[in-house]
Amino acid sequence: MAAGVAKDAGGDPLVLVSNRGPVEHTRTSGERTTERGRGGLVTALAGLAGHFDGAVWVCAALSEEDVAVTREHDGAAFDLEGGGPALRVRMVELEPEAQHKFYAIFSNPLLWFIQHYLWDLSDTPDITRREIDAFDNGYAPVNALFADAVAEEVEALGGRATVMLQDYHFYLVAERVRARCPDAFLYHFIHIPWPHPDAWRVLPPGVREALFKGVLGNDVVAFHSGSYARNFLLCCQELLGLRVDLDRHTVDVGDRTVAARWHPISVNPEELEAAAASPAVADHVRRLAKKRREHLVLRVDRADLSKNILRGFRAFDTMLDDHPEMAERVTFLALLQSSREDVDQYVAYMEKIQQLVADVNGKHGTDDWQPIELDLGGDFDHVLAAYKLFDVLVVNAVFDGMNLVAKESVLLNERDGVLALSENTGAFEELGGFAVALHPFDIQQQADAMFAALTMDAQERRSKLEACAAIVRANDIAKWLREQLRDVRRLSERGPKR
Amino acid sequence: MAAGVAKDAGGDPLVLVSNRGPVEHTRTSGERTTERGRGGLVTALAGLAGHFDGAVWVCAALSEEDVAVTREHDGAAFDLEGGGPALRVRMVELEPEAQHKFYAIFSNPLLWFIQHYLWDLSDTPDITRREIDAFDNGYAPVNALFADAVAEEVEALGGRATVMLQDYHFYLVAERVRARCPDAFLYHFIHIPWPHPDAWRVLPPGVREALFKGVLGNDVVAFHSGSYARNFLLCCQELLGLRVDLDRHTVDVGDRTVAARWHPISVNPEELEAAAASPAVADHVRRLAKKRREHLVLRVDRADLSKNILRGFRAFDTMLDDHPEMAERVTFLALLQSSREDVDQYVAYMEKIQQLVADVNGKHGTDDWQPIELDLGGDFDHVLAAYKLFDVLVVNAVFDGMNLVAKESVLLNERDGVLALSENTGAFEELGGFAVALHPFDIQQQADAMFAALTMDAQERRSKLEACAAIVRANDIAKWLREQLRDVRRLSERGPKR
Repeated sequence: MAAGVAKDAGGDPLVLVSNRGPVEHTRTSGERTTERGRGGLVTALAGLAGHFDGAVWVCAALSEEDVAVTREHDGAAFDLEGGGPALRVRMVELEPEAQHKFYAIFSNPLLWFIQHYLWDLSDTPDITRREIDAFDNGYAPVNALFADAVAEEVEALGGRATVMLQDYHFYLVAERVRARCPDAFLYHFIHIPWPHPDAWRVLPPGVREALFKGVLGNDVVAFHSGSYARNFLLCCQELLGLRVDLDRHTVDVGDRTVAARWHPISVNPEELEAAAASPAVADHVRRLAKKRREHLVLRVDRADLSKNILRGFRAFDTMLDDHPEMAERVTFLALLQSSREDVDQYVAYMEKIQQLVADVNGKHGTDDWQPIELDLGGDFDHVLAAYKLFDVLVVNAVFDGMNLVAKESVLLNERDGVLALSENTGAFEELGGFAVALHPFDIQQQADAMFAALTMDAQERRSKLEACAAIVRANDIAKWLREQLRDVRRLSERGPKR
Repeated sequence: MAAGVAKDAGGDPLVLVSNRGPVEHTRTSGERTTERGRGGLVTALAGLAGHFDGAVWVCAALSEEDVAVTREHDGAAFDLEGGGPALRVRMVELEPEAQHKFYAIFSNPLLWFIQHYLWDLSDTPDITRREIDAFDNGYAPVNALFADAVAEEVEALGGRATVMLQDYHFYLVAERVRARCPDAFLYHFIHIPWPHPDAWRVLPPGVREALFKGVLGNDVVAFHSGSYARNFLLCCQELLGLRVDLDRHTVDVGDRTVAARWHPISVNPEELEAAAASPAVADHVRRLAKKRREHLVLRVDRADLSKNILRGFRAFDTMLDDHPEMAERVTFLALLQSSREDVDQYVAYMEKIQQLVADVNGKHGTDDWQPIELDLGGDFDHVLAAYKLFDVLVVNAVFDGMNLVAKESVLLNERDGVLALSENTGAFEELGGFAVALHPFDIQQQADAMFAALTMDAQERRSKLEACAAIVRANDIAKWLREQLRDVRRLSERGPKR
């Protein structure tokens, strides 16, 4: 059971649904390896199992070995070995072509770009037969497969269960589960921004309405921030003509009422600190400390277009232009994890990043100083070490559902480092008051903010960092779970069906 | 006095404000020529003068000869010669560099792109010193010059006047006029879309708030559609924390209440029909009729990124792929007017258009058939002739405040032509029920819609066209003016200051 969460969700069992599950199977030299997922979200969700009367997690069989395991169980749920509360796992095998259409065409980039305002609307996207096919023969049937798997599990549990759906891959699941299991309580947490109504106009009306009707099959739709919940309600009103209550945060769908809620996700401080205390991290710290310059600016991101990596480097370039005294005294270390390399836009974005880094280093660098150091290794121990050592952490995302890097980094930093945080992140609602605000489109402002953060008075740096860390500790991932469990308890008790 | 508009605006005089005024002066071979503006909006606004007790129009001195005339009058207002009600004109001379920053950097592309959702946010725009300078030393001082000119005119008229501001160039005028002339009634009509709050986050908070505070200096802010008015109120609530009433469409600013209104602009049918009856148009009709194929698809647009010209051609390409029987039987005539050639994005867009036309013509064309005919001449007589002859008129704008081409074309067409209209135009609210709807991002849907329109039953074509024309006749530009005058009458009578 996750620390700080009381067992309070009532007597129903739990069915969790996410694309990536709590375990991955691989095969090396003939041996099967079973690895439990690391990372805050998977651990936290697994911890939820302890609050329910039985739990099963429905997820995709992602690796070849996952598929083999799934087939060995004839597609049925199996017990998950290892620590934590008792949890069964049901993996859903997807036909590779449907999986590709579901994941690499429709979910990414189409939905992801819509929800982060990333389309260049005068020219992209083109909705063609390919995109419609990706919905009809990818997203929709994969969602149907998941819904059927969930419904079978709910039925096997006697028809009453709390179903907790994760993220934008499963907008069509709830409606179909509800049709088969009217006594299930359906709770969908969406981890990315929910945009204003006009952003959805990119999709053909039929597809758009199918997605919204699907999501509205839930009892609760939850987000990381109040503005996303509000946008969701405004969409229901404007795009579907439904009656919404912007004060009570509800939308009426036929004779049901769907609640929009927001609970900012967070990290597990104990788990993070334990990971950061490892010898491997200490090795990285020694190496980084030895080669560091006076100032270390850090960013840690998936190489995603929403992260605003180009403007971050342009701002650093501008700061070096404006402050030649900083030459050779500062390094911008960018730990980027490559992402979605099967999607054209991401390949092009990475090329732009590498060209820009070469340009800035060519312009400002010297024989023994590279202003920007780009690392695509994706080693989490390296990340943890860098968290300890930065002077300024840059999170300048264009739009970002939450941004957990901001929360992780302030817990681990040991140099009174300053968090420079985009006002368009979910995290800004909590941490903005003690961060240096970044306006993500404003190169000059970001350059000025970087310089201000680097030259800030030591006392102010310390008090800001301490305040940020205290906020994250008080609003940890256990609280995020508690608030969802409270929703389940309160909202599942009322309404006609319970 | 415009036809159909009763003199009902009360006893105050009128001060009109727009960038382009009702007259342009030029000099050819030593002679000054004074040309009254053509086009529905200028004529309609000039007609407003007859409803007020005196009228003065404040506008920019755009041509060299405008500047000469302005200097001859020492910057003061002068009588406008020619037909129509008595009207004085005051031209504001702008320093060329400030004019460039005001118009070609800040207003276009920055504001225009924000309000049409055209920025490619992962990479553009960069707000740099250049953009901030364009606001500080372009948009803001030009707005101040206009505000001071307006205030002087209001004071000369005794301090009471109705001030009617036009469009997105003058967001800072009302607040400054109100400070000097508290008894003026300020009415701002915005002719382009008003986007959702997140679109405004492209601007630094200081600039964004200055613009909103400026606009909220008005008594009424008016738009072409209810959704723009609603977005405006949502912005006031979300970005400025003001109290709004989404049912009464008002926003409270200190002790004042600002009303959001919407009145769809239209055309003047009589004027348009008179223009279309000219011998020059008849010449164009003969020439077009002689060379036409069985089917004529037409588009008429400024070459603006909001107009969705690329996807229109891609859809036509797809239609030719899907229906080889259409080869050599159809021409897509695109009458495009080049636009904003001093803005990089427009130059690049025109290059993309020309490349795409060459590609499609190379792929489908034959020795004596070019599927797409691109005409950049910008001859309005040619446009009027083409309106008479099209079988399908394509308006597939990404987003468009109103789109008057849709309204003009249905009045003049003589072949039971079908209007294929983007659901993201202001005009769709009125005409959508009798048009073939276009989903502007959906290439396949547009291709299918073009084919459906081209092959539609003659009876259905006729009844749709007649219904569209009847709607435009009933909702003409005189009605647009009447509704604004009614706002002035009703809203200027209440409130503490009158």
